[in-house]
Amino acid sequence: MAHRAYDRSNVTTCRKSNHLTHREESEFSVNLGQYLARQQRRVDMFLDQCVPAPAVGDPLVQAMRYSLFSGGKRLRPILAIAAAEAVGGALRTVLPFACALELIHTYSLIHDDLPAMDDDALRRGKPTSHVVFGEGIAILAGDALLTEAFRVMAEAARTSSLSPRRTLQVLSEVAQAAGVRGMVAGQAADLCAESMPPELPMVEWIHIRKTGALIRAAVRTGALLGGAGTAQLHRLTRYAEFLGLAFQVADDILDTEGALHVTGKTRGRDQVRQKATFPAVLGMATAKQRARELLATALDELRPFKRQADPLRGIARFTVGRACPPNGDTGARR
Amino acid sequence: MAHRAYDRSNVTTCRKSNHLTHREESEFSVNLGQYLARQQRRVDMFLDQCVPAPAVGDPLVQAMRYSLFSGGKRLRPILAIAAAEAVGGALRTVLPFACALELIHTYSLIHDDLPAMDDDALRRGKPTSHVVFGEGIAILAGDALLTEAFRVMAEAARTSSLSPRRTLQVLSEVAQAAGVRGMVAGQAADLCAESMPPELPMVEWIHIRKTGALIRAAVRTGALLGGAGTAQLHRLTRYAEFLGLAFQVADDILDTEGALHVTGKTRGRDQVRQKATFPAVLGMATAKQRARELLATALDELRPFKRQADPLRGIARFTVGRACPPNGDTGARR
Repeated sequence: MAHRAYDRSNVTTCRKSNHLTHREESEFSVNLGQYLARQQRRVDMFLDQCVPAPAVGDPLVQAMRYSLFSGGKRLRPILAIAAAEAVGGALRTVLPFACALELIHTYSLIHDDLPAMDDDALRRGKPTSHVVFGEGIAILAGDALLTEAFRVMAEAARTSSLSPRRTLQVLSEVAQAAGVRGMVAGQAADLCAESMPPELPMVEWIHIRKTGALIRAAVRTGALLGGAGTAQLHRLTRYAEFLGLAFQVADDILDTEGALHVTGKTRGRDQVRQKATFPAVLGMATAKQRARELLATALDELRPFKRQADPLRGIARFTVGRACPPNGDTGARR
Repeated sequence: MAHRAYDRSNVTTCRKSNHLTHREESEFSVNLGQYLARQQRRVDMFLDQCVPAPAVGDPLVQAMRYSLFSGGKRLRPILAIAAAEAVGGALRTVLPFACALELIHTYSLIHDDLPAMDDDALRRGKPTSHVVFGEGIAILAGDALLTEAFRVMAEAARTSSLSPRRTLQVLSEVAQAAGVRGMVAGQAADLCAESMPPELPMVEWIHIRKTGALIRAAVRTGALLGGAGTAQLHRLTRYAEFLGLAFQVADDILDTEGALHVTGKTRGRDQVRQKATFPAVLGMATAKQRARELLATALDELRPFKRQADPLRGIARFTVGRACPPNGDTGARR
């Protein structure tokens, strides 16, 4: 994943043009809520077919489903679907690839929570996989979900009406984003960084890979399968890169400030483990400002897109808004 | 992996036709040794390009390479290459897919050795990955190798002159063999079976998946990419199924009887952990007889193939011969 260093000159303070009025935002929230719920149902139905309920006493499949259906927001598959829609693509062709991203994301959470990694006992308000099924089965459930993701994509590519050139590009990019130059590299660096004092370049390096790479791959998956032109693909990629960082800054803020019912995790776990987080290196106020700036820049990349890109806009606002409401907002509307 | 139950009626005692004279065997061993060494070099060179030596201080890539270049026999990639050659296919097209199988095999060894699984401190005579790099990095190195396997296949498929229909079938079959219906299912069942008294159907169920599925996928990968016809593919698939079981029976025998310099593992580890092994359920003499029967049946499937299938024949004989020499042989020629 040869991520360019993001062009900081684009990260300016929030632009007025990206702000909605109170009423517009309220209407949009309702629409976004409906949109997200509709796509979540589609994703859940497909995932239920991918990993069907197990025969009695199959702890491996039980463990896979336990984590797969534990209330995930389905951010990555919905981003892929929304990106495809933004360029006029069809849901049918993108859905299996979108769901494969959720399989990969779920595997990564199971492995990240292991005692040898982040040692988390709680995820989305429920005991983590290794707490319920034991470490061995948790590791294998992760392995199986990762493998299943590529089976699903290969099968979808075989039967797709799209050109194999495109579907194989997607497959390759997803593998690249998830692997040794992407997500796994980020997690490894995060693990090794626990003994070092965190600094901003390192925190960014880690999160561009650990969280950002798969979010970027999700948006590019949708864009590529949806038939994006070169300029569209370029803009959507940059939207995804800024969104990915904004997402992680927001997540770090929530880990420090958020209540258990919002994060589903024990508050302050990152602080206890001296994890490399944005609030730790920037301070809380600057971290919030940075999240807003990243949001504004992400939205700016969507400027040439019409109403079909509204879900992408809404997801970005929602992602940052749950951790830090727009400037001057007391957070009462959250 | 909807493995058929193997047709036991085919498993008869060793057929005379599959036996070589002393001199023929001696000549063949030299040729096989040269063949294996040549293919190992090709595989090693390709793998070295897939996971290049890391920048200083990158423990993730160091861990990947540590296990990848720790003296593996490259059985799976060489089987894929040999199967392609048996049907007149070209090395160039099959090599990346063959090497992807070794990446998957290596990841599975790292994860199987973890304290939460088989808890092995020694592999191929060297300390296992988690002993050297710690559990966290070992888990991530496995994850990265698995992911890299699919990236390598997707990239090879993109640039291959073969039809995408074939390459995507291979990709899908490999994922199926490695995943929740194949290798991972076998390892999970093996893990859960430790508390139960081993019985033959369960031992076979486990090993058909844990070891057999990837060996089957290796041979089918070579056959499919080499352009096998339906009948050829059917015979090579059955060869691989019998070879896979024979390999595991031989491995179980070696674990019980073999010296450290042969297995690279502490002798009798399986017995200590009460693992589901063939000698444990059949007794040693019957297990050896079963390995020879499986070898004979595997070789019988190759009968219609000409000299191009000699490496496949040699690999099968070598696989079983290292644990149990042909009937009446004292083992002095090993």
